Amino acid sequence: MASAENDTRLPADWLLTNVSRLVTLDAASGGAGPLGVIERGALAARNGRIIWVGPEQRLAAEVAVEAVAPAARVDAGGRATLPGFVDAHTHFIFAGDRSEEFHLRHAGVGYEELARQGRGILSTVRATRAASADELRALGEARLRSFAAHGTTTVESKSGYGLDLATEGRILEVMAALARAGETVALPRVVPTFLGAHTLPPESRGSPEARAAYVDMVCDEMLPAFAGRARFCDVFCESSAFSVEESRRILLRARALGYGLKIHAEQLSASGGARLAAELGAVSADHLDHATDDELDALRDAGVTGVLLPGCSFTLSAPYPAARRLLDRGMTVALATDFNPGTSYSESMQMMIALAVSAMGMSLEQALRAATLGGASALALADEVGSLAPGKRCDLIILRGADERELAYHFGVNLVAATYISGRRAEV
Amino acid sequence: MASAENDTRLPADWLLTNVSRLVTLDAASGGAGPLGVIERGALAARNGRIIWVGPEQRLAAEVAVEAVAPAARVDAGGRATLPGFVDAHTHFIFAGDRSEEFHLRHAGVGYEELARQGRGILSTVRATRAASADELRALGEARLRSFAAHGTTTVESKSGYGLDLATEGRILEVMAALARAGETVALPRVVPTFLGAHTLPPESRGSPEARAAYVDMVCDEMLPAFAGRARFCDVFCESSAFSVEESRRILLRARALGYGLKIHAEQLSASGGARLAAELGAVSADHLDHATDDELDALRDAGVTGVLLPGCSFTLSAPYPAARRLLDRGMTVALATDFNPGTSYSESMQMMIALAVSAMGMSLEQALRAATLGGASALALADEVGSLAPGKRCDLIILRGADERELAYHFGVNLVAATYISGRRAEV
Repeated sequence: MASAENDTRLPADWLLTNVSRLVTLDAASGGAGPLGVIERGALAARNGRIIWVGPEQRLAAEVAVEAVAPAARVDAGGRATLPGFVDAHTHFIFAGDRSEEFHLRHAGVGYEELARQGRGILSTVRATRAASADELRALGEARLRSFAAHGTTTVESKSGYGLDLATEGRILEVMAALARAGETVALPRVVPTFLGAHTLPPESRGSPEARAAYVDMVCDEMLPAFAGRARFCDVFCESSAFSVEESRRILLRARALGYGLKIHAEQLSASGGARLAAELGAVSADHLDHATDDELDALRDAGVTGVLLPGCSFTLSAPYPAARRLLDRGMTVALATDFNPGTSYSESMQMMIALAVSAMGMSLEQALRAATLGGASALALADEVGSLAPGKRCDLIILRGADERELAYHFGVNLVAATYISGRRAEV
Repeated sequence: MASAENDTRLPADWLLTNVSRLVTLDAASGGAGPLGVIERGALAARNGRIIWVGPEQRLAAEVAVEAVAPAARVDAGGRATLPGFVDAHTHFIFAGDRSEEFHLRHAGVGYEELARQGRGILSTVRATRAASADELRALGEARLRSFAAHGTTTVESKSGYGLDLATEGRILEVMAALARAGETVALPRVVPTFLGAHTLPPESRGSPEARAAYVDMVCDEMLPAFAGRARFCDVFCESSAFSVEESRRILLRARALGYGLKIHAEQLSASGGARLAAELGAVSADHLDHATDDELDALRDAGVTGVLLPGCSFTLSAPYPAARRLLDRGMTVALATDFNPGTSYSESMQMMIALAVSAMGMSLEQALRAATLGGASALALADEVGSLAPGKRCDLIILRGADERELAYHFGVNLVAATYISGRRAEV
C-alpha cells in the first residue's frame, strides 16, 4: 500500500459492498444495459455524497477503504441496490380522514351528494385549517417515515389544503420543520411547492367577485409571502378549478418572484394547462390524461417533464395515462404517487412502478427511470438525486432480494429492506 | 366478585382489549352492519379458540379476566381488529425465479418463444424437481411468514410443480412439515391440496399415449399415495391443460379416496370446468372468468364457492373477473391471491381486497367477507375460521389504524400491525 502522502485513492467516509446488482441509472458508470447495472458492485461516499461507483474488485485500489469507520461500512448482504425513489408529486400535509368517502364513492354516491354531506376536498381543507402545526407535523412525519420505508428518499410536497394565508403558511412551516428534522435523522428530503390555487376555498365560492378576490390574494399576498419558502408554485388548471387565464396570471407572478413552475394539466378534461406549461417553461406538467399529441410535442420541445400519476387511475377506477405516447415521442417522464386523501392514498412508489408495468405498458427500465431520474427532472434536481453517480447525494435503497427485476413482478408488498438518505439509514 | 366456586364467568387464558372496532363478520355478535362491527369491543379465548366476543364494558362481568396471565393480555392500542384472512388458492411451494420471464412477457415476447427459451411453468417444474425438501421448506417458510405479515392466517397450498410421484410427494411432505412447525411457532395454518393435474410434465408431452399414461399415473399412483396427506384434489381444467373428461376421471377417483374437490375452471377460455364442479359437488370452482350465467347458477345451486383471483388479471393485464355477476345471483364468493411464480406473485390479501374494490366493483363489506368467510367456505372450514365467533380459532389481525375502512382506500402498503394465529403472535 502507498504511504499516506502518496495515496492517490479517494478518501471515503461511507462504503457499500456485497451488492448483487448495483442499479446505477448512470450511463457513465460503465454498468450494463439501459439501467447501468454493475454486478458485484460497490459504492463509496463522503459527507453524504457519492464519490465512487464501480465493481467491488476495484474498490480497494481506488478508494481508501481502511479509513472508513466500521459503523459506516454497509454490507448489502448480496442484495440489489438502487437509487432512492424521487416522488415528484404529493400532497402529504393534511388532516382528516376520507376513507368513508372513498367507499361511498365506489358505492355510486355522486360528487354532488358527497359535497352535500360535507365530504370531498373541502372536508380536508376544514380539518387542515383546524389542525395545529404540531398536529400537522406529527401526521407529516409519520407519513414521511412510511415513504422512506417504501424506498422514497426525496418527496415533493404541495400545500393547498389551507387556502388562506395563515393555513398555507402553517403548512409550509411544517414542511420546513420536517426538512430541518431531516438534517439530524434520516427522513426523505422535502421539496416544498405552494399550491394555493388547488381549489377555491369555500368562502370564495359565492360570486365571480369572491373568486377573483381569491386569485388576487394568491397573487398579491400569498405568493410574495411564501417566496423563498416554497421552491415551486403549482396550479390546478381544470374547468372545475382554475382557468388557463387565472393559471397564467398566478404562474407569471410566481415566476417573477423566483418560483419554479408546475401545472396540474389535462387531468379530468382538456384544460389547456399543457400548452400553458410549454408556454411558460414549467418544470413539469402533471397528469396529462387528456393531452393531445400536439400538446405533448409542445411540452417535449419546451423541455417540460411529464409527471404520470397512476394511483389516481387505480383509486378512481379510471383509464390509466397513456405513458407510451409520452415515451414514444421522447418526452422526459416521471412517475409519482400523488399521495393525497382524495384520489391516491398510497406512499408506495413500488406500487406505481407495478401499475406502470402492468397497467400502462411501460417496461421496468422505463418505470425505474421515471421513478428516479424522471422525478429528479420534475423537481429540477437532476444534478443532485435520481442516480448513483459521483457528485450526487448518497440516497439509495437495498432490496430484500438479489434482483431489481422482482419490482413490478412481486406486487402489493414492500420489497425494500433498507433506505439510506445522504448515507444515513432511515428508521422505519 | 363471586367466590371461585360460584363464579359463572367464562374461564379465559387470552384476552384482547382496547379495540376501536372489532370487525366480527358474525351476525350473532350483535355488532353493527353487514360486518358485525362492535365498537370498543373485546375478545376472550381459551386454548387457542374464541370463547367470548362483545363490548369491552361487559368483558369483566362475563369473563374471568383476573385469571389471565399478563403476557396473554393483548392491548390493541385503540386500533381495529378483524379475522385473519383465509387465502383459499395458492401455489407457494416452488423453487426458481421467473421475474425475467414476467418482464419479457410484458415486452411482448410470446408464449411459444418463452417456452423455447425454457421459461414458463416447466421452468418452475424443473427448478422444483431439482430442489431438496430442505430448500423447499426454507422457501416455503419465508413465504408463510410474509403471508402472516400481511394478515393471512390460513393458506391453502397446492402441489403441482413436481408432476412426478417423488416430487409431488416431497412438496406435500414440505407442507406437512410447515403445518407441524405451525404447532410450535405461529405460522399460518397450511391446507394441502394435490394438484398433480396442473400441467402435463415435459416427459408426457410427446404423444397421446404418454399423455394418457400421465393421467393414469395421477389416478392410480399419486392419488392413492397421497390420500390423507392432501385435504383436496384440484385439476386445471383448460384446453391447454386437462379436458373435462380427464378432469372428471381424476376427480371421481379423488372423491372415492376421500379428497374434497376443487377445479381451476373457465380461466383462460370456456373449459366446461364449472359444470363439472357443479356436477361433482366440488367445494370450490376457481377463476371463472369465462363462466356463463347458467354455469354460475349451476354452481350456486350446487353450493360451490366461487374463488376469484384478481392478482392474475393484474399480472396478465387482463380483464378482471366479474364479481358482481356472482354476488348478484347469491353465490358464495372467496377472494384469494393465487400466489404463484407465473401469473400472480403476491401474498397480500390486502392487495386483492384493493383490486376487488377498485377494479371489480365489490364493496369493502363484500371484499372483506370474501377474504375471510368466503375463503373458509372454499376450504370447507367455515366452522373453524373466517369470523370472530365463539368456537372458532383465535386467528385475528390488528391493523395499524383505528378503522377497517382504510383497507382498499390506502393501497400498496401493509396496513396490518400484528397477526395472531390461535392466539399466538406471528413473528414477522
